[in-house]
Amino acid sequence: MAETFTKIGVVGAGSMGKGMAMLFAENGLDVSLYDANPDNIDDLPSVLQRGLAPDLHRRVAGYKDLTEFMHSLGGADADKLLVFSIPHGSAADKVIEQIRGFLTAGDVILDGGNEYYENAKRRQDALRPHGISYLSMGVSGGYQSARRGPSISPSGDRAAVERVLPLLKKFAAKDPKTGKPCVANLGPGPCGHYVKMVHNGIEQGMLGIVNETWEILYKCLHIDLDTISSVYKKWEDEGELKRNFLFGIGADICRRHKEDGQPGHIVNEVQDKVVQDADNSEGTGFWTVMEAARRHVSAPTISSAHFFRIASADRAQRMEVVEALGQATGAARKQQVDEKFKEEFIEDLRLAAYCACLASFAQGMNLIARASSDEGWGVNLAECIQIWREGCIIRSEYIADLLQAAYEKEAGVMNTLTLQPVADEIKRTIPHLLKVVKYGLEWNAHIPTLSASLEYFKYCGGKHLPSQFMEAELDYFGAHNYDLKSEGDGEVKKGEHHYEWKPA
Amino acid sequence: MAETFTKIGVVGAGSMGKGMAMLFAENGLDVSLYDANPDNIDDLPSVLQRGLAPDLHRRVAGYKDLTEFMHSLGGADADKLLVFSIPHGSAADKVIEQIRGFLTAGDVILDGGNEYYENAKRRQDALRPHGISYLSMGVSGGYQSARRGPSISPSGDRAAVERVLPLLKKFAAKDPKTGKPCVANLGPGPCGHYVKMVHNGIEQGMLGIVNETWEILYKCLHIDLDTISSVYKKWEDEGELKRNFLFGIGADICRRHKEDGQPGHIVNEVQDKVVQDADNSEGTGFWTVMEAARRHVSAPTISSAHFFRIASADRAQRMEVVEALGQATGAARKQQVDEKFKEEFIEDLRLAAYCACLASFAQGMNLIARASSDEGWGVNLAECIQIWREGCIIRSEYIADLLQAAYEKEAGVMNTLTLQPVADEIKRTIPHLLKVVKYGLEWNAHIPTLSASLEYFKYCGGKHLPSQFMEAELDYFGAHNYDLKSEGDGEVKKGEHHYEWKPA
Repeated sequence: MAETFTKIGVVGAGSMGKGMAMLFAENGLDVSLYDANPDNIDDLPSVLQRGLAPDLHRRVAGYKDLTEFMHSLGGADADKLLVFSIPHGSAADKVIEQIRGFLTAGDVILDGGNEYYENAKRRQDALRPHGISYLSMGVSGGYQSARRGPSISPSGDRAAVERVLPLLKKFAAKDPKTGKPCVANLGPGPCGHYVKMVHNGIEQGMLGIVNETWEILYKCLHIDLDTISSVYKKWEDEGELKRNFLFGIGADICRRHKEDGQPGHIVNEVQDKVVQDADNSEGTGFWTVMEAARRHVSAPTISSAHFFRIASADRAQRMEVVEALGQATGAARKQQVDEKFKEEFIEDLRLAAYCACLASFAQGMNLIARASSDEGWGVNLAECIQIWREGCIIRSEYIADLLQAAYEKEAGVMNTLTLQPVADEIKRTIPHLLKVVKYGLEWNAHIPTLSASLEYFKYCGGKHLPSQFMEAELDYFGAHNYDLKSEGDGEVKKGEHHYEWKPA
Repeated sequence: MAETFTKIGVVGAGSMGKGMAMLFAENGLDVSLYDANPDNIDDLPSVLQRGLAPDLHRRVAGYKDLTEFMHSLGGADADKLLVFSIPHGSAADKVIEQIRGFLTAGDVILDGGNEYYENAKRRQDALRPHGISYLSMGVSGGYQSARRGPSISPSGDRAAVERVLPLLKKFAAKDPKTGKPCVANLGPGPCGHYVKMVHNGIEQGMLGIVNETWEILYKCLHIDLDTISSVYKKWEDEGELKRNFLFGIGADICRRHKEDGQPGHIVNEVQDKVVQDADNSEGTGFWTVMEAARRHVSAPTISSAHFFRIASADRAQRMEVVEALGQATGAARKQQVDEKFKEEFIEDLRLAAYCACLASFAQGMNLIARASSDEGWGVNLAECIQIWREGCIIRSEYIADLLQAAYEKEAGVMNTLTLQPVADEIKRTIPHLLKVVKYGLEWNAHIPTLSASLEYFKYCGGKHLPSQFMEAELDYFGAHNYDLKSEGDGEVKKGEHHYEWKPA
């Protein structure tokens, strides 16, 4: 078995696949790039010209024929290294079926797409007996990051992961604080894709949060886009949202003016619909909601953001609802406020966004902890945060500093909210979240994610919840039983008491 | 093939199974009742003594032995009718395996448990080739309703459903308005269990709503439980919450005093934890959240109520969070308000609850419409409402009148919010929901479901959503593309425009 690979085959020449191909080439590998769609290969020369190294065209060869592509990686005797960058679902199964005849023991497949973890597990189980290692590999950061160095979460057969890890370390994003690469052997099975899925779930919650701050700034406080750009830039520069990727790119977006000489900003040309869940091209967002429900992990920030964006997708149907409801719900309302209030409120908004981001992270991390425990993966939460320090969409330095240190102290924690340093930050900033939600309501802003985050903290930290009444209702009609308050907290299992609230 | 059945075998002698057994006997059938747990058979004589008919003990025979049980239903030549009332998951598979040798063509199994619809489908497909009809049959109303007449949603092989329908019509609850039985042939496949699952999802949302009104009345407005009982009774008596089951039983619960002579109410002895999701004894609640996510139907009322109750389950862990957060979130606060305000606010609360219940119904019905379309079931939404008019947990006469009429006019509607009569009711009552959410925030009440319902209406009826910014962010890092505002609503598919917000 060769210890190192000198060639790599990339299947899928979309924006992510091309980016990775160039990055591999720049890291010294000979790259073969295949795509079933010849158009994605035809434009390769022009794309390579934009590469950083001058000789990229000599290191990256495009293939439209799968047999030629596989031959380029060496014959049956050579250990072959492949990377998949293709859509989730049946696409990888089809590719594996097509190349199966070329695969031999010792070959390694890195599936870098956003695959559903159970699909990844199924392929691992099918290929393992033949000595072929299918690694479940989350790759985060989008197409630009794939080009510059993504955040990578690989898992699977331990020896195979260790074998490719030196290569992945070169290729991965580097944590600017320590220089450490944002990649680690996450564990066995498909936990790499699982962790990436949750990354995207946390991202979904944070996208909701960022989005809601934008409406409040732009529509309610009526701040112009160039100024909002400066606000976001400042938030990204220092403090609780330091190096927060989504606020950082928000700053970029708000300052892009139209290029045709007409006044206006590009963002104001973008239609208000998010379709990638509804058209099934992106699975990770709704899978995270499904997994949270399935594993009984409370995740209202993530799911509220999801259900908001889902509702935005079918705009034609939405306009029918708008027609039927008339002005019942209306738009976010423009406010007349003085400069002092505005300045103060922008600071409230920053800390509210931070507080809500902690909710999104806590929910995601609790889901990873639960799944890892259920499946026996042994995922290290501190290591996940380390991987997300650079190159990925939920990058957020201040939050990473907070969480990574807390997880390092309490490995095996099942609920992030029980960690004192995290709880202290929530305590400190929840008054700002409460204030923003109150004004958001007053101003008729859309705040599904911010308000869900506030309620989440309220009930997670609630000593006495009204669920005593809900439990009584369930016992009334379903004989579900209950625990007695006098017996203490009790276990998470059916209570021993039933009352015949209304004798049959 | 016998046209009618004179005997029926009930598998599972829990509270639901025993209730159905007695109801079948009272409707003229000879009933055999089996349970793998002998304790559930041993107490049969005492349970039957409480039956309505004097000769129940002669009509219901208990069995601890499966072979004897199956023989009691007639030999291989007799068409046998079986009802399962057992936990979801592998239990039914095990029973089918055990009785498979006794089953012959013409036999009918009614699975009346809360089964996951894909399990039901699998069993239908396995038994169909052998002429054995496995019907997917939702049974709602809890154990008391199983005794008095439940709401029933059967589906599967058309001929088999039609064959048992006369029997089910006798057995089912009757709509008090028309006398019509609350049962219908819902369609092919496992849609009966699907519709029942969504019923429980809507129930989950409504439980959250009822629960939140209870905390506001009891903790914030500081109204005593006996008075709250009268308030709920009045709500149930007339108006928008007329014959709303969950408020009706809420009235009963609030007036149950301790029986040991000590002062106090039973409900105040109940611990504030809902465990049946977390311990997997009840699947329907979290399946509904999973299905909404999987089929891209926005369902924040249902999921917010779910994530609240899930978070209440592990009380010991919650107390760790309470310890870590200290007084950061705190409890619902007692208010000093005058009688006039209180009276007015109670009326706001009633209409807010109604408005939020419409959100829960709309989300559930939209999910049924979507699944029915995806799976080709042809479920009639008006018929679902008819089935839920009596005997079930989400019974709510005013809402049923509103929805059933609207669905009868617009069969095939995909989004309930587009129906003008429904939208008119939301328009009329949303100001009350807004007011309650604002005060709920002010008073620190737990309002995850009420606030999520309000936000739901706001974004579903939002002509211009901030998702234009979210879409720009997704395009920035993921090259997800977008539609132009200038091009109109567009389709639910990937847009044609991409902007290099930050050139690579």
